[in-house]
Amino acid sequence: MSGELELLKWIHARLGKRSGRIAVDSGDDAAVLKFGRERILFKVDSVLEGVHFRRNDPPEWVGHKALARPLSDIAAMGGVPVGALAALMMPRSMPMARAKLIYRGMEKLGVPVVGGDISTHPGKLAISVSVLGDMRGARPVLRSGAKPGDVLMVTGPLGGSIRGKHLKFEPRLEEGRIFATRLRVHAMIDISDGFARDLGHLCEASGVGATLFGPAIPTMTGSSIKGALYDGEDYELIIAAPPATAAMIDREGLGISVGMVRSGRGIRMYDNDGLVAVIGPHGYEHKLG
Amino acid sequence: MSGELELLKWIHARLGKRSGRIAVDSGDDAAVLKFGRERILFKVDSVLEGVHFRRNDPPEWVGHKALARPLSDIAAMGGVPVGALAALMMPRSMPMARAKLIYRGMEKLGVPVVGGDISTHPGKLAISVSVLGDMRGARPVLRSGAKPGDVLMVTGPLGGSIRGKHLKFEPRLEEGRIFATRLRVHAMIDISDGFARDLGHLCEASGVGATLFGPAIPTMTGSSIKGALYDGEDYELIIAAPPATAAMIDREGLGISVGMVRSGRGIRMYDNDGLVAVIGPHGYEHKLG
Repeated sequence: MSGELELLKWIHARLGKRSGRIAVDSGDDAAVLKFGRERILFKVDSVLEGVHFRRNDPPEWVGHKALARPLSDIAAMGGVPVGALAALMMPRSMPMARAKLIYRGMEKLGVPVVGGDISTHPGKLAISVSVLGDMRGARPVLRSGAKPGDVLMVTGPLGGSIRGKHLKFEPRLEEGRIFATRLRVHAMIDISDGFARDLGHLCEASGVGATLFGPAIPTMTGSSIKGALYDGEDYELIIAAPPATAAMIDREGLGISVGMVRSGRGIRMYDNDGLVAVIGPHGYEHKLG
Repeated sequence: MSGELELLKWIHARLGKRSGRIAVDSGDDAAVLKFGRERILFKVDSVLEGVHFRRNDPPEWVGHKALARPLSDIAAMGGVPVGALAALMMPRSMPMARAKLIYRGMEKLGVPVVGGDISTHPGKLAISVSVLGDMRGARPVLRSGAKPGDVLMVTGPLGGSIRGKHLKFEPRLEEGRIFATRLRVHAMIDISDGFARDLGHLCEASGVGATLFGPAIPTMTGSSIKGALYDGEDYELIIAAPPATAAMIDREGLGISVGMVRSGRGIRMYDNDGLVAVIGPHGYEHKLG
């Protein structure tokens, strides 16, 4: 996986020569392109058999996940999804009925699949879904806006998503939209790589550090705090909001406070007995003492 | 392949409940979405090892083809590409250096790759590229606008693309743009499935038939007329233009006349001795006599 990260950074670094239309590039949850006065979000994500789903997972849920993943990125920018394209790469032996069930799973998310591409190949099933979204006049919420003193919040319990949530999660589109408009937050990212790593991405992009209070981090039933920090594929949102906004978010039940943004670098986690973990910029925990 | 076509039609038929933003759906070369007063083109295409390229093909050209294929669809609508997203699904053993060469091949096409997704899996290399384009005020040229009496033209020689052109072709973006603006044609499609089949798609969408004059069809060196009709992956454009426009296109060397649009159904091909072939709506040739 570190090779993939290195490659993404290499690609990202080469994206310097930009046309005037590109407002934010691939470093955020989605690319932002300017079309006249509209800002359009553009994102692709892939799911692969054996990596993101298992051969025996119900095809409707495989389709659901394939579309819900890029939708989660649109949510993390505060956008409204407009349409999707689905590219299916199917094993030659896959029955068409299974492909149809995959599409039905996508349809249920309510975002029109406006096109696609179907290929058969000797390999396993892979699905790439691209999504277009728009901001309807709002400004996209980036990873890079967090400020010292902001409250860090998450939109739901973390950890253990492998037991089902990773396939059946609902992208936080409504919440993300509220955080871009009525209860405007400073920074936002969705949790795909794991809370610690994605918080690390947000902190790195914002040039800040974070202090977490471990017992405040909501965990899924059956998940440990370690699971909540590192499991990944929660598809909840992490937000950084000024305290007054955070209080309103808390009052409306849209987020749970888990810590604060501070100046400096790195993530420090405390429990009732004091400092319990220091998490590096890429989300790897350093053992203490 | 007929299973894929059936599946695409099934998907297409389900796309009835459309949001007001969708002007043209997946039945054309690209989907068209309305954003304010702008019309945005949206297209995905995939290339797979063993299907669209070989393991030993130079990675720069694999990247080139992966992006050039959806660009050819943008060309066939008369649009201007704005940005692309690339999803790479790589075998675990693939060296990062090879992935970088694939990206370099995409870069050379001059369309910014604004984001992407990289996954490793146990299968072969697959690349899905999505492209956004805009019309800059022009109307998209659809498949469905051909009228009896129109001249049918192609933008270059056909057939035998497996000998190299399928990998190294230049998408006809400049020509497509001219055919949407200054020398406005009635209908346009790019040739991916083969001239006969793609002309069949254009005729079917327009509710017309076609008469071809075989000796006028330009063939690549070494290709037979059969190859020109059926090989595919030429990525030239087929256009249907009123005779006065066709004359100007001919004068400027932007297209070669190959036949006429007629009322009725089906494609009939003549040579100097008379009728030589009847091609059904899906591009399959029916033996004569």
